[in-house]
Amino acid sequence: MTNPTAAMLVIGDEILSGRTKDTNSGHLADELTVRGIDLREIRVIPDDHAAIVEAVRSLSDRFDHVFTSGGIGPTHDDITADAVAEAFGATIGVRADAREILARHYARQGTELNEARLRMARIPDGAALIDNPISAAPGFTIGNVHVMAGVPTIFGAMVASVLATIDGGAPLLSQTLRIERGEGEVATPLADLAHRYPELTMGSYPFQKNGVYGTNIVVRGTDPGRIGTAVTELARLFPEAIA
Amino acid sequence: MTNPTAAMLVIGDEILSGRTKDTNSGHLADELTVRGIDLREIRVIPDDHAAIVEAVRSLSDRFDHVFTSGGIGPTHDDITADAVAEAFGATIGVRADAREILARHYARQGTELNEARLRMARIPDGAALIDNPISAAPGFTIGNVHVMAGVPTIFGAMVASVLATIDGGAPLLSQTLRIERGEGEVATPLADLAHRYPELTMGSYPFQKNGVYGTNIVVRGTDPGRIGTAVTELARLFPEAIA
Repeated sequence: MTNPTAAMLVIGDEILSGRTKDTNSGHLADELTVRGIDLREIRVIPDDHAAIVEAVRSLSDRFDHVFTSGGIGPTHDDITADAVAEAFGATIGVRADAREILARHYARQGTELNEARLRMARIPDGAALIDNPISAAPGFTIGNVHVMAGVPTIFGAMVASVLATIDGGAPLLSQTLRIERGEGEVATPLADLAHRYPELTMGSYPFQKNGVYGTNIVVRGTDPGRIGTAVTELARLFPEAIA
Repeated sequence: MTNPTAAMLVIGDEILSGRTKDTNSGHLADELTVRGIDLREIRVIPDDHAAIVEAVRSLSDRFDHVFTSGGIGPTHDDITADAVAEAFGATIGVRADAREILARHYARQGTELNEARLRMARIPDGAALIDNPISAAPGFTIGNVHVMAGVPTIFGAMVASVLATIDGGAPLLSQTLRIERGEGEVATPLADLAHRYPELTMGSYPFQKNGVYGTNIVVRGTDPGRIGTAVTELARLFPEAIA
């Protein structure tokens, strides 16, 4: 049994210009790893209609789930919902259920539900709404694409809602061994070990901190027993290692 | 005259699992923006030969420059150089110039240049080396693809070397106006302004901090005069705005 696969699509000029540093994809990566959903690609693209349509089609064809962030607010640069609708050949307009959610939210706040805010009720036909407990304006799921807000607190809340509804797989587990030797000394025995444990992946990440340098070996897989055995072997090869 | 375009390709399982948070693409975004090179896409993919070959081909066809990070160390999971060589149909082996750089570095350190470390001298034929002032092992440029290390300090040093050799364009400038009103109130006048300044982009980014909420409007473009005029108009519409 293989785990479901996923891609993250970050939509926003502000990430590509460097003004905003994307933290949503790192958060999603953490959440998917715990649930046994393999994140296979992260893509960041501009607020450009054609680029969004193309990326949504390409990623939704190749992966079980696509998570998007950004571009679902009330301003002219919020074009994600329309582009995703086009990618699926779906019609889109202000939907009664989304409008009702916004109407209640703004009534409670004593704020007008003006034409700009109504844009946030534009939802493709056939999509399921994703709850937004923070600022009401919903995300939506159409096909295998989950369309969410770019503001990290709202993105996080929406991810939690979506993940409660989809099946995961065997969680990706990992153990890290810290070895105070350069990668060049660890490489050959590590390659041998990786070869003998084809069902695990062994990543090697050099570090240098406060004048100490060395290598973190991360052993990843879904079988805790095999990971434990591999790490024990590794620790025997490098007795000074710190688990 | 249009600016050169670029894509960033981050290679590494550790980013997709969430273990490591990518900071290299944010750094590159900042550097390219200053130099007038338009970063149009960031893609994160696993340490997988076929995935690297496919992404390098696809991105190098579509953009003027491709910057990669990760996968050029001495361990078995460092497969970037071979995959990039294949993407370009280039032969690859231990190259004398790269070997010489490593030999001098390890001799100075009194460390053996063993077989694993020699892997870092595998450079495609026809590629130009990228200097690594920190740990010697070079990156390389082949065609329009710049292959660099994943360790952020080394990546940063390599980016500086590469950017010194390539032509930029008109720097992307921006001015930000902070308005303590929700996006829903700013949206309509902002859309009208954006329509009248087609050569600029106007991004709208909501914020909520210490109970204060509002919108940052970022006006971007290459003509400082036009940006100034647009921001002045915007400030007249929202007299309480803070530049």
